[in-house]
Amino acid sequence: MANPPLYRACDRAVSEYAMLRDGDAVLIGASGGKDSTALAGYLSSLLKRRGGPGFRLEALHVRTEFESRAEASVPGEKLGADSFRRIGGLFSAWGIPLHVADVSVLDRLKPGRKMSCWWCSTQRRTELNNFALKHGFNKIALGHHLDDILETLLMNAFGKGELSTMPPVLHYEKYPVCVIRPLCFCDTEMIIRHTKAGGYSSSVCTCAYQDNSFRKEARKKLAALTCGSYREKLMLFESLRNIKNGYLP
Amino acid sequence: MANPPLYRACDRAVSEYAMLRDGDAVLIGASGGKDSTALAGYLSSLLKRRGGPGFRLEALHVRTEFESRAEASVPGEKLGADSFRRIGGLFSAWGIPLHVADVSVLDRLKPGRKMSCWWCSTQRRTELNNFALKHGFNKIALGHHLDDILETLLMNAFGKGELSTMPPVLHYEKYPVCVIRPLCFCDTEMIIRHTKAGGYSSSVCTCAYQDNSFRKEARKKLAALTCGSYREKLMLFESLRNIKNGYLP
Repeated sequence: MANPPLYRACDRAVSEYAMLRDGDAVLIGASGGKDSTALAGYLSSLLKRRGGPGFRLEALHVRTEFESRAEASVPGEKLGADSFRRIGGLFSAWGIPLHVADVSVLDRLKPGRKMSCWWCSTQRRTELNNFALKHGFNKIALGHHLDDILETLLMNAFGKGELSTMPPVLHYEKYPVCVIRPLCFCDTEMIIRHTKAGGYSSSVCTCAYQDNSFRKEARKKLAALTCGSYREKLMLFESLRNIKNGYLP
Repeated sequence: MANPPLYRACDRAVSEYAMLRDGDAVLIGASGGKDSTALAGYLSSLLKRRGGPGFRLEALHVRTEFESRAEASVPGEKLGADSFRRIGGLFSAWGIPLHVADVSVLDRLKPGRKMSCWWCSTQRRTELNNFALKHGFNKIALGHHLDDILETLLMNAFGKGELSTMPPVLHYEKYPVCVIRPLCFCDTEMIIRHTKAGGYSSSVCTCAYQDNSFRKEARKKLAALTCGSYREKLMLFESLRNIKNGYLP
């Protein structure tokens, strides 16, 4: 069977950014959502397609107290059980060991501070980093995709007056771990088509603290700017790799 | 009387980009349109406000065979007479010598090539450069403004996959002349308000060869992206001055 479009786009990212080498130990940040699940499916397929010694591939699901509250099938059931159960079967079929770490992001909040998506994701990222360092992983694979990257670009431009975003490869200065984003050439539509074809659903964060107004605004801006066209999104991404310093303010 | 907003925005550009020094010889590219006319008004006022030896200030109007055809008051009248006449009085009142160069952009077209806005503007720019070099000007002041700069950014990103635009200051590699764009912090709305208050009209190019579809598309994209907000346009411009190379693809 031919490679699905999502795998071709990921192959391009892995190759152009030299994301993976034989001997790497890769930890997937598995949120339970469609993006990181599609990423896990891709990395498992890549490992099988690649000859040679390959790389070590495992995943960590950082479970917070907010997880899947709306989806818990039994009232009072341990929060988050659903999300983990849903992806557990898939990861097992793909041969990817799936670990779980329980974190209470509310407990970690300093007195007087407001709970936010930013705080929650920072805490989950910290947990992911610590787990990677403790267990000898040198790469953390995240499910951020083309739309996420371009939305963050617009959020940073209009919010901070800064040209920056989440790069496909990020080397931490302080840690011997690097972040890779193999979905950087995949947009939401491509991922939805892929996960629907694979028959797995998506999870939506349902905590009561969400205030995504900045991201929602950026999403609208991106849609208006590109009319949702994949080709236009790719061109915008490409322009960020092709900066003419002499022809900028 | 307080400085009008347009002059304050121009003052900021001249200061932040160190656009003008005492002893400079500045040639304004005077198209006859509102932008370069507002620019001339500003530079003349700046010269008066500045103490010291100041700078030499003159202007060149490059007249093509297409100019003001629709506005010629007498059928068959020499094309372009109107445009020149319209700004002549203003420039004279501002104490800016206004020169005219007649150029037939059609005659210069190589056989088989199509006439375009790009070709016309290239020819007019060449004429401006030659005049500046011949008459000892070291700076060419152009009327491109914030919207022009951001539209060009979007045209280059989506058309060429390149992050570039018209910078506020551009040093030519081959010539001892540099281009300055003191209107870089002024948007169209600010300029229209300013020229209306000054009582001078705007001219529109009416040649039959126009195919501005790319620029029109970029104009739409910019409007969708910023909702026409001056603050958002400034933030986008600012982000181009604040590029975080480690956080880009």
